[in-house]
Amino acid sequence: MPRIRILTEADLRGRVTLDLGLVELIEQAFAALATRAVVMPPILSMEIAERHGEVDVKTAYVPGLDGFAIKISPGFFDNPKLGLPSLNGLMVLLSAETGIVQAVLLDNGYLTDIRTAAAGAVAAKHLAPRAVRSAAVLGAGLQAELQIQALALVRPFGELLVWARDPAKAEAYAEKMAARLGIPVRTVPSAEEAVAAAQVVVTTTPSREPLIRAEWLHPGLHVTAMGSDAAGKNELDPAVLARADLLVCDRVGQCATLGELRAAIAAGLLPADHAPPELGQVIAGLSAGRTTDDQITVADLTGTGIQDTAIATAAFQRCAAAGVGQEIET
Amino acid sequence: MPRIRILTEADLRGRVTLDLGLVELIEQAFAALATRAVVMPPILSMEIAERHGEVDVKTAYVPGLDGFAIKISPGFFDNPKLGLPSLNGLMVLLSAETGIVQAVLLDNGYLTDIRTAAAGAVAAKHLAPRAVRSAAVLGAGLQAELQIQALALVRPFGELLVWARDPAKAEAYAEKMAARLGIPVRTVPSAEEAVAAAQVVVTTTPSREPLIRAEWLHPGLHVTAMGSDAAGKNELDPAVLARADLLVCDRVGQCATLGELRAAIAAGLLPADHAPPELGQVIAGLSAGRTTDDQITVADLTGTGIQDTAIATAAFQRCAAAGVGQEIET
Repeated sequence: MPRIRILTEADLRGRVTLDLGLVELIEQAFAALATRAVVMPPILSMEIAERHGEVDVKTAYVPGLDGFAIKISPGFFDNPKLGLPSLNGLMVLLSAETGIVQAVLLDNGYLTDIRTAAAGAVAAKHLAPRAVRSAAVLGAGLQAELQIQALALVRPFGELLVWARDPAKAEAYAEKMAARLGIPVRTVPSAEEAVAAAQVVVTTTPSREPLIRAEWLHPGLHVTAMGSDAAGKNELDPAVLARADLLVCDRVGQCATLGELRAAIAAGLLPADHAPPELGQVIAGLSAGRTTDDQITVADLTGTGIQDTAIATAAFQRCAAAGVGQEIET
Repeated sequence: MPRIRILTEADLRGRVTLDLGLVELIEQAFAALATRAVVMPPILSMEIAERHGEVDVKTAYVPGLDGFAIKISPGFFDNPKLGLPSLNGLMVLLSAETGIVQAVLLDNGYLTDIRTAAAGAVAAKHLAPRAVRSAAVLGAGLQAELQIQALALVRPFGELLVWARDPAKAEAYAEKMAARLGIPVRTVPSAEEAVAAAQVVVTTTPSREPLIRAEWLHPGLHVTAMGSDAAGKNELDPAVLARADLLVCDRVGQCATLGELRAAIAAGLLPADHAPPELGQVIAGLSAGRTTDDQITVADLTGTGIQDTAIATAAFQRCAAAGVGQEIET
């Protein structure tokens, strides 16, 4: 009888946290995407319009890893009216040798949250200028918190600027993050001011209208846009991508349908078959990352199944080794 | 904190069996596919060639049902060498209102097995001639057993013929099924003899070469081909589909890429945009099923996410009502 380990969010929070080890794990996963015969099919996406909901399923097989994850991510955007979080989900880890289910990770989206933030840190590690005095974030939600925590692991900075559509949320975010980071965090009245003052900007919103204009770009700036993960979303003026010295995608095929690259192609500013380097190629040294401190770089992140396989495999191994979770005979 | 019900294969076997109730449940699900605003995205399929494995993910949202299932079906075809079954998997049931995970159904493929057989019975109910003296089955595996059990629920028959590539397996099947059904079951040396003697033939093999030739078709025959669920598989000579008086698909889009319809289109015998009626349309009375006893009918079944959502929803409700399974706080 197969035995399956059931891991709850609490089990997982106790064993996997957003730290440098996780950033390296995700970095290696991206490198594998560029150097190994990874299999990563397109995302299965189902919209449930009448419920204002959607569900995405992602997976990836990485040669050499014992398992592969299948992640189920529902987003139901009327949930807050019911006092429930919009985002949710779980991961299932299957043996890469037999396909047998090894573990069900009932993480309620926790692992997705931190593997997404870790990818932002990986992008900054390879693309941000060496010295970052000021960082900025657009948006004031959970990813705005986690992306900045992750950024601080790879590029310590002296101050943080935050802009959000809702000033009250920006204020609350500033207070919270100042306490967490131990540095000054100030709200700014416009995205433009945030971009002007920073060497690294992370955009974390579900915006459907560009928030950053090309004319605001300045030498020595790196922008990570992680908010767009669907065809209707768009955080960067398409001209930003055309004007950047270097654009890097987590996965070109996904960015061209779900990310900022999609909007730039739709606007006619980049050709439909535009193939910027992928993050994994930069990590693996197959493509250049930032080469001078005054370049303008942009990372377009849509989230990939390989991140899920990497974090689920590591989470399972740590929990199993520690005897955490519950084993069920099926 | 959300509470998730964990159901094992034993829990599920105790509450959901292959009976007329299940056939009706699957019949209603197909009818919904034709009459309601069902959302059923294409299957996510990942091949892991170096492991001789694959995994499929299916889902469907049915307006009016409390939940929707996401089913993960791995098939790793070297498993028998390790003493393990090739097929496996689980279903996850999410609330259709909030997307929150309600249950994890660790069925090891059991629910898929019986919902697949139930679909065969639904096809026979609407397409087979009224009187079936002899049924035949090609293949001697688990689906050969379940499809015939399911057929007996809707079209009682007096004898069963079985042909399989491996005569020893056919013999073992005949002995087992004779005991189970209480009727004569005999092996035949060729698929042709099986087809010649039967009014209903069910093909249940992973064949990549046609097993049934068009010249064997005779008036009053119904064929359900359920083996092909991938682009390389093919059980029926493409001319069988062209020659049948009525071809019915479970889902045209899937059959055109994964089923017998694919092979018939590839052979140039049917146009690429050929759109035969779907099983749900026949059930709902939107398209004619069999109208005379001497027609030749063919059902092309590839397996649909709507069957998974229907059986997972029913299984969860029955288990929850009976207090079966284990609740986990996440």
